[in-house]
Amino acid sequence: MVACGVVRTPAEEDVPLRLLRIEQGIEEWLDLHRPDKVAVERVFAQHNVRTVMGTAQASAVAMLCATRRGIPVALHTPSEVKAAVSGSGRAEKAQVGAMVTRILRLDAPPKPADAADALALAICHIWRGTATNRIAAALSRVREPRP
Amino acid sequence: MVACGVVRTPAEEDVPLRLLRIEQGIEEWLDLHRPDKVAVERVFAQHNVRTVMGTAQASAVAMLCATRRGIPVALHTPSEVKAAVSGSGRAEKAQVGAMVTRILRLDAPPKPADAADALALAICHIWRGTATNRIAAALSRVREPRP
Repeated sequence: MVACGVVRTPAEEDVPLRLLRIEQGIEEWLDLHRPDKVAVERVFAQHNVRTVMGTAQASAVAMLCATRRGIPVALHTPSEVKAAVSGSGRAEKAQVGAMVTRILRLDAPPKPADAADALALAICHIWRGTATNRIAAALSRVREPRP
Repeated sequence: MVACGVVRTPAEEDVPLRLLRIEQGIEEWLDLHRPDKVAVERVFAQHNVRTVMGTAQASAVAMLCATRRGIPVALHTPSEVKAAVSGSGRAEKAQVGAMVTRILRLDAPPKPADAADALALAICHIWRGTATNRIAAALSRVREPRP
């Protein structure tokens, strides 16, 4: 199952308190959905440095919550996520939303747009994981001594 | 009391696990020293973007641990810290170490250098806090109705 939600914190609040709210939100979901994997977007410092620092800190909280419970964490870059759902690492935000809607057979694109991004990340993780497992299985067959 | 320690995590380990180790280290200190305030360096994306992302994530863990216990968190910029101990916001690392040694009347500069930085941050926080409190006290005296 792919679970999706968005934690929002008031922009005017201090960063430490916002991080605490994010932790509380993630803990609730982990209690509720009991995922066996958590996928987190790998953050790079690119355009907007100020935004990226906040994203890095929020992603640290997500990684921490999962790891504390022994849930494996996988990191995927934004390009990997876009490529997985749309075929292009440079897809536009709207295109990602449209593909997520089609893949998951939803009636309308998920809102807010962050929810579509989170679902794209989950889809990316499932597909990449499956591909990696298939390659590993094929390799193990090749390497096995023939009967 | 100013408490100081350094958590080190193996560079070859995955980030989620390293963040968990940092959390465990900080939790131990909070249990041991029961601080009434936690000072954290405010991170900016400057020179080495890769280093800064890791620093942002580690500082998120420190903020989270303190806030979870209701301990107030104060953020100070590297320039504020350098200026507080040395008088110059552009002081060299060695100068900060030397001033920390003098201020705290230590026999030798704290090692590793990160420990000196942490102590400088604590000194900065105490001094800035005192100054802020004095200004607040002075203002409240000015604003009080005269008898």
